[in-house]
Amino acid sequence: MKFTIDRNKFLKMLNTVSIAIEQKSPSPIYLNYKLDLDEKGLTVISTNGNLTIQTFLPYQDGDNIYISDYEEGVTLIQAKFLLEIVKRLESDTVTVDIIDEVIVDISDNYSKFRLNALKAEDYPQVDFELKGQIVEMEGETFKNIINQTSFAAATKENARQTLLGINMTSHGNEIDFTAADNSRLARKTYHADKEYDFSVTVPSKTITEVAKLIDGGKITLSIEENKIIFSYGDTKIYSRLIEGKYEFTKKYGNIAPNYVLQAKSDLLISAIQKATLFAIEKINVVTLAVSEDECHLSSSTVQVGSADISLSEYRYKGNYFEIHFNSSFVLDAIKACQSEDVVLTFAGEAGLFKVSNPNDEDLLLLVTPVQTYSY
Amino acid sequence: MKFTIDRNKFLKMLNTVSIAIEQKSPSPIYLNYKLDLDEKGLTVISTNGNLTIQTFLPYQDGDNIYISDYEEGVTLIQAKFLLEIVKRLESDTVTVDIIDEVIVDISDNYSKFRLNALKAEDYPQVDFELKGQIVEMEGETFKNIINQTSFAAATKENARQTLLGINMTSHGNEIDFTAADNSRLARKTYHADKEYDFSVTVPSKTITEVAKLIDGGKITLSIEENKIIFSYGDTKIYSRLIEGKYEFTKKYGNIAPNYVLQAKSDLLISAIQKATLFAIEKINVVTLAVSEDECHLSSSTVQVGSADISLSEYRYKGNYFEIHFNSSFVLDAIKACQSEDVVLTFAGEAGLFKVSNPNDEDLLLLVTPVQTYSY
Repeated sequence: MKFTIDRNKFLKMLNTVSIAIEQKSPSPIYLNYKLDLDEKGLTVISTNGNLTIQTFLPYQDGDNIYISDYEEGVTLIQAKFLLEIVKRLESDTVTVDIIDEVIVDISDNYSKFRLNALKAEDYPQVDFELKGQIVEMEGETFKNIINQTSFAAATKENARQTLLGINMTSHGNEIDFTAADNSRLARKTYHADKEYDFSVTVPSKTITEVAKLIDGGKITLSIEENKIIFSYGDTKIYSRLIEGKYEFTKKYGNIAPNYVLQAKSDLLISAIQKATLFAIEKINVVTLAVSEDECHLSSSTVQVGSADISLSEYRYKGNYFEIHFNSSFVLDAIKACQSEDVVLTFAGEAGLFKVSNPNDEDLLLLVTPVQTYSY
Repeated sequence: MKFTIDRNKFLKMLNTVSIAIEQKSPSPIYLNYKLDLDEKGLTVISTNGNLTIQTFLPYQDGDNIYISDYEEGVTLIQAKFLLEIVKRLESDTVTVDIIDEVIVDISDNYSKFRLNALKAEDYPQVDFELKGQIVEMEGETFKNIINQTSFAAATKENARQTLLGINMTSHGNEIDFTAADNSRLARKTYHADKEYDFSVTVPSKTITEVAKLIDGGKITLSIEENKIIFSYGDTKIYSRLIEGKYEFTKKYGNIAPNYVLQAKSDLLISAIQKATLFAIEKINVVTLAVSEDECHLSSSTVQVGSADISLSEYRYKGNYFEIHFNSSFVLDAIKACQSEDVVLTFAGEAGLFKVSNPNDEDLLLLVTPVQTYSY
């Protein structure tokens, strides 16, 4: 196997598939990229067992020649070093040359790097054929849905397994993307032009990495019973699903609009950030106290100090109201609204409250308050 | 004590004096800024016992009023929180108000922060009068001297105490600034217009922090037997000196120019960086092999891989020559030259070698090679 390839194209391929490469792996074969040069072009594949990603580059596209001087073949090359080498080279093209199946030379005019290569026989085979329920959507729409929800997914190992994922559920032509941990939830509804019937949970790390690859274009999701395949341009990502029933741990229905605060997002973000300065003893716990006349965000830690920030512009409907919350949860939710104004709706001191963009009915953001008696 | 102050000016003062504030201190008093408002203006002081820094802001400068609504007084305020508060506020002015000597309110129109304050009685007094040998120089010249030398100072506790500092020695009108650890040395000679007689060693951390404050203007150094005072604009820094005889551990005289390589700095830097990729087993150890026909930088680690980079443009005088060195030491030295071309001069495989800017005779950079027999 041998080829000379456009360095920027090759580097982009290696970066794309690097999302499946972990620092350490119980299976050393997973620390390698598989390079497969066949009659159509170069395919680079990586996997960690749960997630497999492949990307493809043809020999040429119209008049642009990407790969030249080649002999077909398949090999495994250590991912970390191959990526580092191609990053550091500065030439327009890179030559990859497998010698006796066990050594690979990676070179340009002035630099030559030599690595061990492995035979590709034991590398796992993945079927990338799209044969499930097919959802096609704009790449930027998909990316934005993930940005507006994924922050709420659980990250700790002590959460329910399903909460480590992003759930996609459809029983008709609306698809709900939901992420939640034990104390907050983010859900965005996508209106499709077809009808579906599925409820699957994808590891949130996988889906956020897929979203990062997006730069325009369309993305296709193929949903089967125990796997999902994302297809984007010349790249395909295969992921196992998380098994088990997806369920947010808190009960909720409609939030009665007993206390409703509307504010400029940037002013509210700034006030909450300042108020968090003395949320030290009770980490990140900020108090909102609001009436028609005054709106204060505050925190204090005994023997250290206190912060009391008043919001200058706001609209409020309700009697005097006080509530305590985790400021980072509320900041995440305000930012997810992506809107100039934001509305906080409280039924009372105890239940979940809602953070919303007044112009986006498809986005639901819920946060659990912090109960004062627990401190 | 009470005052309303221009927030940007105040923030700059607090940032300037923050260099003496450590995260933790055996003496809690050192975790505070001292604020002293007298008939001339505001002085902010911080200290960690070895290093004391103060900066001053007058009530007004011409038509610009910096401090208003004031009552004179002195207090200590927790440095970390005061800095964080003034950073986060967004208004043009900040009001500081001491209540009953033990509480301080820091506020603007919309935000109020409350901290504990301490009486300033126990805060150490420092004499900032400039009464030693006085060196006055351009601030940018001083900064550049420190940038070209300080990287070579020892940082480990296992070095000689004096090597943790930058030595300044003069017995005439040349001042040598020297930094060295156990295997490299950087020295820059400054030509003064006065004659001096001193040899003092300043903690390198202190002197690099002082250099960072410089932005134009002139700096004055006052050198006494056991202390140095830097005076720059309205800021004064007092530092204890490191005791003991300053001495580089390696012997060196003139380096005989038996093997002399001249190259473009950027090409040599790039080649060394690439060659370092497989300097894993012998960390950062790169081999230079040079003759009139070829110049190679290389590294290898058994069972992992190897790198072999050829330098495309260079001039060389000498027979075929091979040497091993720590690439990060050589990269530091090449960068310190601040020149388009750089010259490496070797007497032989074993002794110190020289990295030099061909147009700067005042800069001396020496590096110890790595002996191969030790591997």
